[in-house]
Amino acid sequence: MTTGRLEQQLRFLVEIDKLKAVIRQTFLTSVDRKENSAEHSWHLALLAVVLEEYADESIDLLRVIKMVLVHDLIEIGAGDTFVYDQAACLEQAKRESKASEELFDLLPADQRDELKDIWFEFNSSSNPESRFAQALDRLMPFLHNYFGGGRTWQANGVRSNQVLSRNEPIDRSSHKLWEAVREMISDATRKGLLAEG
Amino acid sequence: MTTGRLEQQLRFLVEIDKLKAVIRQTFLTSVDRKENSAEHSWHLALLAVVLEEYADESIDLLRVIKMVLVHDLIEIGAGDTFVYDQAACLEQAKRESKASEELFDLLPADQRDELKDIWFEFNSSSNPESRFAQALDRLMPFLHNYFGGGRTWQANGVRSNQVLSRNEPIDRSSHKLWEAVREMISDATRKGLLAEG
Repeated sequence: MTTGRLEQQLRFLVEIDKLKAVIRQTFLTSVDRKENSAEHSWHLALLAVVLEEYADESIDLLRVIKMVLVHDLIEIGAGDTFVYDQAACLEQAKRESKASEELFDLLPADQRDELKDIWFEFNSSSNPESRFAQALDRLMPFLHNYFGGGRTWQANGVRSNQVLSRNEPIDRSSHKLWEAVREMISDATRKGLLAEG
Repeated sequence: MTTGRLEQQLRFLVEIDKLKAVIRQTFLTSVDRKENSAEHSWHLALLAVVLEEYADESIDLLRVIKMVLVHDLIEIGAGDTFVYDQAACLEQAKRESKASEELFDLLPADQRDELKDIWFEFNSSSNPESRFAQALDRLMPFLHNYFGGGRTWQANGVRSNQVLSRNEPIDRSSHKLWEAVREMISDATRKGLLAEG
């Protein structure tokens, strides 16, 4: 085995394999199982590539992609939290902070700092890139539900106003995507995929 | 549902969900199942971010990441092929070409052309970006095997010379990574994870 800097990097890259074992609440549209956070992150990166034109502010696409690639890494230590479970969400920030320290510390210092900065930036929603990345992170589970017959919504008795409120951050980055999402929410409510009110 | 360009884009982004159902030969190191091509693509994108410094030639990192994000998309129609199964590999190119037409055609023409170009570029190994992306696509399954006790190697009676030959394209992009891989192959052979010769 090689030593030093490259060894640290390879050990980090093998460690993050564990993100493939973190299971989300979203059901896939193509096979009958829930999604894991690694394949979710891949999907968001391709959303960034394909939907870049809808960002209302000018964005650095590479920065957005790096953000969505790492945004869930801390779940390796902390687990995924169902967004409509309020009690669990309160504990989430504490667990994630500790987990992110341990994971990113595997890297050489310069890369540890870079990826931590990107992760904090994503969570801050403080610039056009993080707002767009956050919008995509809302949009994809919504599309899974909408195109997958509202399975997670129905299993949890989710109401249209909860979905509106959960997805509203999309509007901070892209009026066009938000408009499309609102249309789909109305459509899903009419079809009974979402409970009214 | 929204209409026109955005509708085409969203339908493409939902269609590619199917990549999560394409199963590879590689076993994960963290859970007892084989890897799917979507989570594999995510992993390669992070390899590109972390290992960029080892590319012998100057590379456009965004281009490399786009390449690894889309490089397996055509498996949605064509399936994954085990690299040591020579007969299947002969049929692979034919199946992939047809599948790539159908999938990318879901997109608006400009994005269809861009992603097809990137996919062909990846397969051509004609520039520094595609050579680096190809190197990462070799490196990660190798790391899975090496750090996972050689499980796929042993299940298929793979020999050290086959692994050397399969991974040699790494040397066309990064002497440093190739040197590390050769050391690990020697080590795996000494430990009996790989058959000699």
